[in-house]
Amino acid sequence: MQQSQQLTSEQQIRELLASWTQAVQAKDLSRVMAIYAPHIRSFDAIQKLQFRGVEVYRAHWENCMSHCGGGPSVFQMAQLEVEANVDLAFSHALIQCGGTNEQGEVQGCWMRTTQCWRKTAGQWQVVHEHFSVPFDMVSNEAMFSLQPD
Amino acid sequence: MQQSQQLTSEQQIRELLASWTQAVQAKDLSRVMAIYAPHIRSFDAIQKLQFRGVEVYRAHWENCMSHCGGGPSVFQMAQLEVEANVDLAFSHALIQCGGTNEQGEVQGCWMRTTQCWRKTAGQWQVVHEHFSVPFDMVSNEAMFSLQPD
Repeated sequence: MQQSQQLTSEQQIRELLASWTQAVQAKDLSRVMAIYAPHIRSFDAIQKLQFRGVEVYRAHWENCMSHCGGGPSVFQMAQLEVEANVDLAFSHALIQCGGTNEQGEVQGCWMRTTQCWRKTAGQWQVVHEHFSVPFDMVSNEAMFSLQPD
Repeated sequence: MQQSQQLTSEQQIRELLASWTQAVQAKDLSRVMAIYAPHIRSFDAIQKLQFRGVEVYRAHWENCMSHCGGGPSVFQMAQLEVEANVDLAFSHALIQCGGTNEQGEVQGCWMRTTQCWRKTAGQWQVVHEHFSVPFDMVSNEAMFSLQPD
């Protein structure tokens, strides 16, 4: 029974993430925001140390989407791992993130994403999210050309 | 009973993190590594997209410590939040990270850290860790001067 519950939780998280990445690709902001808890604490890759609360984070997501060019967004997870039990879970993956410029060229990089989940009233929600790109200690610049091993 | 278990798990995680930050400040590598599971997957702030396995991650920690100057290290968590149940947990915090140079001056920045925990054979271990500094979208440089709000 417990093993079955664990499998079900992991499957639920994987389905939510698949739907969420599709929503980001489609720039469907309402569907993107649907996975976040009202008190989400996000450590995003750019701009600030943290974003607290779903309204603040929604405004940030909207701003990010406006920087992704007019074409379809690239937002593809790789090496996704999920650990879950009955009401807590975490997931981590590499994520190819970018957009298409006016010449139709894909521009992007590999990032890392961690999501921390709590099940509340039967619904899994992301209560904490962490996105980042590593930086180079000599130039201090974000390392956009790293490839997954 | 369940509430009591939750409080205990959170307290255990907080104690482990307090001991771990002291170990980093003291540059006690064995004590630093003691919280990690053998199959740790780390998304660190520098150099690579990911580090897999405690031996690979130990070598990386050793390398990082050699860059922190001769004086005591600065490694201080703020705004730590922990969610835990019987065998899974996650914690996230801002962390002031740096060192002391030969003139005795503290040099460092605020970073973000997320740890994901699993309890195995009665022992909490970090199975996933994520450290980062946000970058500036114009200069592409890591934002070392951000302050907590």
